[in-house]
Amino acid sequence: MTAPSTVVIALGGNAMTGADGSATPAAQRAAIAVAAGHVADVVATGVQVVLTHGNGPQVGNLLVKNELAAHEVPPVPLDWNVAQTQATIGFTVVDELDAALAARGLTQRTAALVTRTLVDADDPGFTEPTKPVGRFLPREQAARFIELGQTWEDRGEKGWRRVVASPAPVSVLDSSAVRTLAGAGFVVVCAGGGGIPVVDDGQAGAALRGVEAVIDKDLTAALMAAELGADTLVIATDVDNVMVDFGTPGARPLGRVTVAELRAHAAAGQFARGSMGPKVDAALRFVAGGTGRRAVITSLEHIAEAVADVAVGTVIQ
Amino acid sequence: MTAPSTVVIALGGNAMTGADGSATPAAQRAAIAVAAGHVADVVATGVQVVLTHGNGPQVGNLLVKNELAAHEVPPVPLDWNVAQTQATIGFTVVDELDAALAARGLTQRTAALVTRTLVDADDPGFTEPTKPVGRFLPREQAARFIELGQTWEDRGEKGWRRVVASPAPVSVLDSSAVRTLAGAGFVVVCAGGGGIPVVDDGQAGAALRGVEAVIDKDLTAALMAAELGADTLVIATDVDNVMVDFGTPGARPLGRVTVAELRAHAAAGQFARGSMGPKVDAALRFVAGGTGRRAVITSLEHIAEAVADVAVGTVIQ
Repeated sequence: MTAPSTVVIALGGNAMTGADGSATPAAQRAAIAVAAGHVADVVATGVQVVLTHGNGPQVGNLLVKNELAAHEVPPVPLDWNVAQTQATIGFTVVDELDAALAARGLTQRTAALVTRTLVDADDPGFTEPTKPVGRFLPREQAARFIELGQTWEDRGEKGWRRVVASPAPVSVLDSSAVRTLAGAGFVVVCAGGGGIPVVDDGQAGAALRGVEAVIDKDLTAALMAAELGADTLVIATDVDNVMVDFGTPGARPLGRVTVAELRAHAAAGQFARGSMGPKVDAALRFVAGGTGRRAVITSLEHIAEAVADVAVGTVIQ
Repeated sequence: MTAPSTVVIALGGNAMTGADGSATPAAQRAAIAVAAGHVADVVATGVQVVLTHGNGPQVGNLLVKNELAAHEVPPVPLDWNVAQTQATIGFTVVDELDAALAARGLTQRTAALVTRTLVDADDPGFTEPTKPVGRFLPREQAARFIELGQTWEDRGEKGWRRVVASPAPVSVLDSSAVRTLAGAGFVVVCAGGGGIPVVDDGQAGAALRGVEAVIDKDLTAALMAAELGADTLVIATDVDNVMVDFGTPGARPLGRVTVAELRAHAAAGQFARGSMGPKVDAALRFVAGGTGRRAVITSLEHIAEAVADVAVGTVIQ
């Protein structure tokens, strides 16, 4: 008997928040309950599932709390906020997944792991931060945080917004714990929000150091899938397929594509930088980085079919 | 070759905050670095270590944030706050532990696990909450939270303070994941703050439900030690020994004691309800609940000696 194949599933923000983007605890719980059902359907196909997820709106809420309570409670750095969302989303996912698995008569156990991702202290993102986080503020209020060393940008009418580094993930530091748990039959929830970003200053005896950054969760999912020896990476989003010529009369969905074909579309500027771009990039990196690998980008509703290899979603192979 | 013995270590709040009780990120990191060194010394003795920790000041900070940002961001329930501290403390501990282990030439890996603890929805704590959390507020400000369903008590001159249930832990739901990781050689950080409190409403298909409560971390440590088949429970605190006749001229430290002896001291009201009482209770439950078990209550500085069975600390056997 061969080991079951390992599938890494990356859940997008829409799987974690209300239809209106609301990130109240109740809205998060309700959205996660739906997502857990789809993930349990993937588990039911017999594969070993490792699950990761986004955390944008949740981190946004925490940043507002940091900001509004700064006069009473010392703000915590962004890596701490990422960690916080791993735990709140993580335990909600395992709660709902336990119920969804039980409802399907499945006996797999679940675990949520706090996960660190190594990034390079020299990543260009740190000198030129570009990833917007948190809410817009008037200039006067933003000034207080600029004084604390944060980078904020003038976004015109909406006000100022904080921008942070979004460095490339170098290594998922806790992937051996993920492998151990997955190998023992656990459905593992990990590397939420791309992982807690840490750097290694290379000083003997010194601990890793958390950094103010957010890592793209799909890029981390692709890296982790490679580290775990997974054969399939599923990026769940809110559309059934990657589209080309989007917004034009010639718009069409991509089905099965090769790495070369998808690269050509990407090079032609087909995918928006802040949305489909990183998903396509992550899928390409995973598939091109090894043999026998497959990536699927599709909607949450179709992930079980996609894993069972039915012709759904955009399949990169 | 027999399996190495398993030791559960419960770190008190003093291992997580500055000497003045400060819970800034920098103070937490510095305190945890010191604690990690002592834990690494325990690992060096060859035992399998499972680590848990308190989170009082950290949860206090999060409650203030909830409160001050409530007009902008929906407050999250207390179980979410507990989860948040598991992640921030958890990843800081594994960062520092990795460094401390490497400095000692040890190759053990580490993992921080989000951990849920089942409590009984009918626990008397829910109808008569007694555990104070968060900061004191004037009556007018407390009123806003009482309206949201919280219980606050008039504490006289200091103002009003929130009280929550502190139910007894029934089961550490994620202990099988802890066992899997520990069995594979990981030093596991888990069940922080006593675990995320959840109840099972017993409805078919329904997920567990988080509840507004905090569980005593030493009681959870004792329960988890039993569930893991550990032979030693170490409760690290800020004194070398449990004292009897504390605050009198006849004050004396307890060394080796039997369950019967320690029970007699407890029955005589020797231990303060909010501090040494729960530690003694946890130690007694663990040792009395099985054979070949040992509990030690001592200061953080002495935990490695205590595990090596030198005559330090208060040893219940």
